Amino acid sequence: MRLATLTSGGDCPGLNAVIRALVRTASSEFGSTVVGYQDGWVGLMDDLRTDLYDDAFIDSILLRGGTILGTGRLHPDKFKAGIDQIKANLDDAGIDALIPIGGEGTLKGAKWLSDNGIPVVGVPKTIDNDVNATDYTFGFDTAVSVATDAIDRLHTTAESHNRILIVEVMGRHVGWIALHAGMAGGAHYTVIPEDPFDIEDICKAMERRFQMGEKYGIIVVAEGAVPKEGTMDAGLGEEDEFGHKTFTGMGQIIGDEIHRRLGYDVRTTVLGHTQRGGTPTAYDRVLATRYGVHAARAAHEGNFGTTVALRGEDITLVPLGDAVENLKRVPERRIRTARSMFG
Amino acid sequence: MRLATLTSGGDCPGLNAVIRALVRTASSEFGSTVVGYQDGWVGLMDDLRTDLYDDAFIDSILLRGGTILGTGRLHPDKFKAGIDQIKANLDDAGIDALIPIGGEGTLKGAKWLSDNGIPVVGVPKTIDNDVNATDYTFGFDTAVSVATDAIDRLHTTAESHNRILIVEVMGRHVGWIALHAGMAGGAHYTVIPEDPFDIEDICKAMERRFQMGEKYGIIVVAEGAVPKEGTMDAGLGEEDEFGHKTFTGMGQIIGDEIHRRLGYDVRTTVLGHTQRGGTPTAYDRVLATRYGVHAARAAHEGNFGTTVALRGEDITLVPLGDAVENLKRVPERRIRTARSMFG
Amino acid sequence: MRLATLTSGGDCPGLNAVIRALVRTASSEFGSTVVGYQDGWVGLMDDLRTDLYDDAFIDSILLRGGTILGTGRLHPDKFKAGIDQIKANLDDAGIDALIPIGGEGTLKGAKWLSDNGIPVVGVPKTIDNDVNATDYTFGFDTAVSVATDAIDRLHTTAESHNRILIVEVMGRHVGWIALHAGMAGGAHYTVIPEDPFDIEDICKAMERRFQMGEKYGIIVVAEGAVPKEGTMDAGLGEEDEFGHKTFTGMGQIIGDEIHRRLGYDVRTTVLGHTQRGGTPTAYDRVLATRYGVHAARAAHEGNFGTTVALRGEDITLVPLGDAVENLKRVPERRIRTARSMFG
Amino acid sequence: MRLATLTSGGDCPGLNAVIRALVRTASSEFGSTVVGYQDGWVGLMDDLRTDLYDDAFIDSILLRGGTILGTGRLHPDKFKAGIDQIKANLDDAGIDALIPIGGEGTLKGAKWLSDNGIPVVGVPKTIDNDVNATDYTFGFDTAVSVATDAIDRLHTTAESHNRILIVEVMGRHVGWIALHAGMAGGAHYTVIPEDPFDIEDICKAMERRFQMGEKYGIIVVAEGAVPKEGTMDAGLGEEDEFGHKTFTGMGQIIGDEIHRRLGYDVRTTVLGHTQRGGTPTAYDRVLATRYGVHAARAAHEGNFGTTVALRGEDITLVPLGDAVENLKRVPERRIRTARSMFG
Repeated sequence: MRLATLTSGGDCPGLNAVIRALVRTASSEFGSTVVGYQDGWVGLMDDLRTDLYDDAFIDSILLRGGTILGTGRLHPDKFKAGIDQIKANLDDAGIDALIPIGGEGTLKGAKWLSDNGIPVVGVPKTIDNDVNATDYTFGFDTAVSVATDAIDRLHTTAESHNRILIVEVMGRHVGWIALHAGMAGGAHYTVIPEDPFDIEDICKAMERRFQMGEKYGIIVVAEGAVPKEGTMDAGLGEEDEFGHKTFTGMGQIIGDEIHRRLGYDVRTTVLGHTQRGGTPTAYDRVLATRYGVHAARAAHEGNFGTTVALRGEDITLVPLGDAVENLKRVPERRIRTARSMFG
Repeated sequence: MRLATLTSGGDCPGLNAVIRALVRTASSEFGSTVVGYQDGWVGLMDDLRTDLYDDAFIDSILLRGGTILGTGRLHPDKFKAGIDQIKANLDDAGIDALIPIGGEGTLKGAKWLSDNGIPVVGVPKTIDNDVNATDYTFGFDTAVSVATDAIDRLHTTAESHNRILIVEVMGRHVGWIALHAGMAGGAHYTVIPEDPFDIEDICKAMERRFQMGEKYGIIVVAEGAVPKEGTMDAGLGEEDEFGHKTFTGMGQIIGDEIHRRLGYDVRTTVLGHTQRGGTPTAYDRVLATRYGVHAARAAHEGNFGTTVALRGEDITLVPLGDAVENLKRVPERRIRTARSMFG
Repeated sequence: MRLATLTSGGDCPGLNAVIRALVRTASSEFGSTVVGYQDGWVGLMDDLRTDLYDDAFIDSILLRGGTILGTGRLHPDKFKAGIDQIKANLDDAGIDALIPIGGEGTLKGAKWLSDNGIPVVGVPKTIDNDVNATDYTFGFDTAVSVATDAIDRLHTTAESHNRILIVEVMGRHVGWIALHAGMAGGAHYTVIPEDPFDIEDICKAMERRFQMGEKYGIIVVAEGAVPKEGTMDAGLGEEDEFGHKTFTGMGQIIGDEIHRRLGYDVRTTVLGHTQRGGTPTAYDRVLATRYGVHAARAAHEGNFGTTVALRGEDITLVPLGDAVENLKRVPERRIRTARSMFG
Repeated sequence: MRLATLTSGGDCPGLNAVIRALVRTASSEFGSTVVGYQDGWVGLMDDLRTDLYDDAFIDSILLRGGTILGTGRLHPDKFKAGIDQIKANLDDAGIDALIPIGGEGTLKGAKWLSDNGIPVVGVPKTIDNDVNATDYTFGFDTAVSVATDAIDRLHTTAESHNRILIVEVMGRHVGWIALHAGMAGGAHYTVIPEDPFDIEDICKAMERRFQMGEKYGIIVVAEGAVPKEGTMDAGLGEEDEFGHKTFTGMGQIIGDEIHRRLGYDVRTTVLGHTQRGGTPTAYDRVLATRYGVHAARAAHEGNFGTTVALRGEDITLVPLGDAVENLKRVPERRIRTARSMFG
């Protein structure tokens, strides 16, 4: 068999571990070969491809962040006229199955290709942990770990200077990174998109800490946090493509407001791209490797129109449609648990 | 309500995170208090206890390895005459529920207490990931991460010196740490108790690497690895309390044999106690915190005779009996997946 | 003898290691005691002090970032009328020698006290490595390590997206952190205050990379970087208290300009307070400990009006005046060496 | 000009950073080329060489542990008949200067070649920090950091189990790694070759801790530690090539003896090869890079028969003879300072 793979959407630690596992499993279990398309779906449209061999180079990419194939953000359903071109390219290259690795948008593209008759097995990828139908995906644990390391470092500097520190982490539509990093880092408040915040509540929580003799506070803010309707300046924010209001620099906005209301020294740190770069954690390497092995097997077993997924301890296959029907948001019960830990 | 907790068995990163979450949830959700017994079950027998307050100290232990309560290895069913003493101690201290945190042995003790009428909610703890009825427990991810970091470091030194390096990791009865660290670290062979090894196979795998131009090999060995019957010296090893044959220094034994057979330069590193000490990973802090929150809730809801457990994305309660009926061993399908990655 | 210590200025990993070493050496070598003033010089003025004992708590602070004594930014020469109050406070508390730990401003305060007859031994502290008369101080290595870790992570994300990434690091007046982190992180250009930049040069360096087939660039920018006179918008920036022009968000300014000129996708990450928080590196713990030991000895030997300093492999004493006469800036020869590495 | 380089002796984090800096500086400052001999001096004898280009591959090796050139332990003065062969090989390859990177043995070889008329600039390399004439070399900081991380992890597990933990670190002839890691890790006793130990003293120190209410102890032991004459079993140990008595497994020997005398639970961890593998610390990357730059310059300036060296803040050149006359051992004053910190 001859497989093809590509990586699409934002980069994510573990992409290379999937590619490696795919190539090795195809080779060691099935004697198959793998082709990589470059720069995401664009490479498939423009037939930019490279053969991936089960050699020392592929072995070495396990630890490497990013993606050796490059990535892009254009999705195939954006150029619907292109389905014939895509089919022709796959035929010319002798590809029997396509294994795209990407997030919710990529899996939608995969579904569209699958609906159009192309044999596809998807691999879900999301720093944000927002893909339905899988417990977790690789990259999320690394992002949470990087954010937690940063929060660990900020505790002592906040305490030494009697400051409130705001840490803005990734999460435009969902608050999983903020929720986990806030819990792992012992934050004193966490603000996520799923639970619109009341600035009054945040200020009260901080005041309570200071009244009890604590000298500082750490607040984790997901970049997509939004104020409860009717609170703070109603004029803030813009509507995004999902119709949600978004706010650039929400960490800074919250910090400024706390300072204005309480007078404490408040500083904001925006963690930025370090959350998505670099060597994956051991957890993410294992999960990414298992995804790659199982995607290769699914292709050889003819289980197309599916995506690999983690369910409990096992890797399973779920229909592509299930994975993309909506974003996985933080449920109410997890918010309640997080709240129990606020200092 | 008044809860009591204790930690028993080997220490494990995340124990303090459970204690912290227990104390905070008892306080913030229920207005309850928590008592800690010292040095495991012995503290319960000898009534060595200390009040745990929801204060800055408890907040600060989230990151700390080990256990602030100390631990011990004696189990309560070892002194069965003591059940009356235990009940008297719990009564005198006004304890409404006991929340022991520990591994398979501790949970057996918890079940015995529960069967004897004491209201118990268990929290599973195991570096080794060998407790049934829960997907994972805290401590395991940290142990795997520490072992993986070590393996990462060993690749380049092995390669520079054209050596085979054996890395012996924890896992006397099960091979989970070896399996995950071997996969995350890109090991070229992994040996675990569930899959008795044939030294001939290992040697062949190494020879294949060298013949293909590779200059080194990394082999991860669980301390409880055993040779396939009839292979290697039948005289090796001793029977342990479970009736299994065990071998002290199995990493060294395998290394010596490979050197003897192939002549390559082979070195062995035993990772030792670093795998169980120190700050927990973000993953383990989140899991331990969730366990603590849910154990406090289970006690207040009267769900006794249970243990908290991770099932997929959720924390659930399972009967204590389910958790202790046998060790969770690495299943055949996981071994097959690992094998696909051997270089 | 009875010593007093305080920490002043921005916090810095290793402050607690100095305090610990001071207390232990005073106790173990001289049988002396140590008092800590709180929140910097303010604590000395207001007589806020606490006894520091050579106990398990002091032992445990070795790894802790920040300062257990708190810190402040007010300097004693700001309230010159206060010298009598300070002397009275020291007399009342029975203090034989004062050991302030701080940066260039703190050491100026220490010199002023010393000139006014108070027995002082200073300990230099600076994240920025800008204190003259010492090769290095603790905190700098940690800041460089944190920044380097971040740069390591950014390489792969920049490469996967064909981006230029700007990393703004600390260094308002000197570029040591940027210089070392840029060299350790393999940056493709580094911009520091000592060497005003020509945006044209930076753009040329990036274009050269892309023309040679590279797909990304990493530029490290010290927050105090300044454009060469006559280049870029002359209207930018404000004068600081040293009479230097400073620019808020210089990383962003440079990034925007590169994007405007070259059209590449450019993103900026500001590392922020994580650089000064958290556990010190092994290097910083050793240096801080040695400072503490030698400061205690200097006080007992009556070597007042001095500060401890690292010179090669040894800790020496230098006159306080030498330490504060001017900032230690990156010399031309180090800039030349860094330049040899730009890709 | 055409330079040649090779790496010899044990591998060490930072070797690749030196090679990278050498190649880039030769190219960017002088338009020169660099050749790499493989597997140490053997490659020079057998003319195994490869051209090293200033390209993306060389750029990428900054972070990589080990050495891309491989290494060996044979020294050129071992095959003295070979000097003509070496000269012929260098002539045939058109080499104008040889830049060997290695430890004390390698630099002796370099001196012998230099004495025989070959233009040589040495680069000192030693995990152990035992090369005279330089303050520090790359690799040492990484080794100390790895050992310190391990000690950090061991504190809590030792404390939770009321144990004494022995940590055996590298250092066959000198105790620098043990001294620094012991100080950075807050060890309660450190045993190094330069200061033969009295087991009685160690036991007393541990007993003092336990009497003061502490529940555990950490002892760092350099592998080359030796008992004071007349103490412990005189029959132990063997003479090494320097005429020193050495003991295999000294950590274990000391641990066993403490257990025998005091009865405490004692465990030993041998850190092993992880200390010399993996990504170099930021400190080591900067130092290695500076060495590489200055070695390239020294060759172009004709400063042969020298080695680069760190002196305070500067890289200097010292005669090869100075670097090899004897091992740099831990001086008495550093031992005294370490002793002040023992708990």
